Amino acid sequence: MRILGIDPGLATIGYALVDKETNHFEVLEYGVIKTSADKDDIERLEIIHRNIEALIKEFEPEQMAVEELFFNKNVKTAIAVGQARGVILLAGSQAGLKVAEYTPLQIKQAVVGYGRADKMQVQQMVKSLLNLSEIPRPDDAADALAISICHGHVYSAHSGWEERL
Amino acid sequence: MRILGIDPGLATIGYALVDKETNHFEVLEYGVIKTSADKDDIERLEIIHRNIEALIKEFEPEQMAVEELFFNKNVKTAIAVGQARGVILLAGSQAGLKVAEYTPLQIKQAVVGYGRADKMQVQQMVKSLLNLSEIPRPDDAADALAISICHGHVYSAHSGWEERL
Repeated sequence: MRILGIDPGLATIGYALVDKETNHFEVLEYGVIKTSADKDDIERLEIIHRNIEALIKEFEPEQMAVEELFFNKNVKTAIAVGQARGVILLAGSQAGLKVAEYTPLQIKQAVVGYGRADKMQVQQMVKSLLNLSEIPRPDDAADALAISICHGHVYSAHSGWEERL
Repeated sequence: MRILGIDPGLATIGYALVDKETNHFEVLEYGVIKTSADKDDIERLEIIHRNIEALIKEFEPEQMAVEELFFNKNVKTAIAVGQARGVILLAGSQAGLKVAEYTPLQIKQAVVGYGRADKMQVQQMVKSLLNLSEIPRPDDAADALAISICHGHVYSAHSGWEERL
C-alpha cells in the first residue's frame, strides 16, 4: 500500500511517500512544497494543487492521509490555511485516492503510543520506525512521514477488523 | 465584461452571472449550488469545484468576484468554509479568470453607497440596479448578484483610472 502523507499549510506543505508492507515501511520520498508570501493567495493555491497533482502522478499512491488543522485563535489564518487544505484534499480526491484525515492526537498515539508526546519524541520514532540514518528535515516533512505511519497503522488495524467480520 | 459572482460556503454557494455594459448590468443567471451534510467534506469539495467549473464552461465569464469570509468565533467552521472557498478560487484561477475578492463592507458600499446597509437594503438595490421584477431568492444568490455589481463598479472605476495614466 502506497501512502501520500501531507502536513497541510499555505506557506509550507510537508509531504511524504511511504510504502507500507505487511510489517514495515519503506520511504520513497519526502520533502516540502513552499509558496512565497510575495504571491497572492490564489496563485499559491494553484501552486499547491499543481504540486500535489504532480506528486500523485509521479509516485501513484493509492491512499492519502492529511493532518487535520487546529487553531486556537486566529480565524483569519484558519481561513487561509483552510483554503490551502481544501485544494490539497481536492487534488487527492480528483486523482481517485482514498483520503483519510487524522488529528495531531491520533498521529502521536499511532507513532509514539502516547498522545502527549512532544515533537522530538515523534521525530525520534519516525526515524526509528522508518530506519532513517537521521531525523528527517524540515519539521513539516517529518510530520508528513508521521502522518503516513499513522495511516499505515490505522488502516492495517482497520483492514484486519474488516476481515474478521 | 462578463462576471461570475460567488458567495462562498460549504453547504450553500450563491452564484450569479452578470454582463456589465458601459452603464448597465444584464443578468444571465443566478442560483445556488448546494452540498448535503450527509456527504463527507471531501466529496462536497469535489462537487463545489465541479459545479463552478461547469458554470465557467457554460457561460465563459472573464472575471470572477468572490466575497471574503468573516467569522468571529467558530474556528472549526472557518476551516471548513475556508476549504470550500479554496476550491472555488482554484476553479476560477485554473480556468484563466481574473479573480477579485471583496469584503462585505466593500460590497455594501458599492451596491448601496453605505457600508452599514442591512440585508434588505442591499437586496432592494440589487433588484433595482438589475431591473428585476422581484427580490432574487434565495439570499445566497442575491448576495452573489451584489458581489457581481460590486465588481462591475470597482473594476470600471479602476479601468478608468488606468486609462487616465
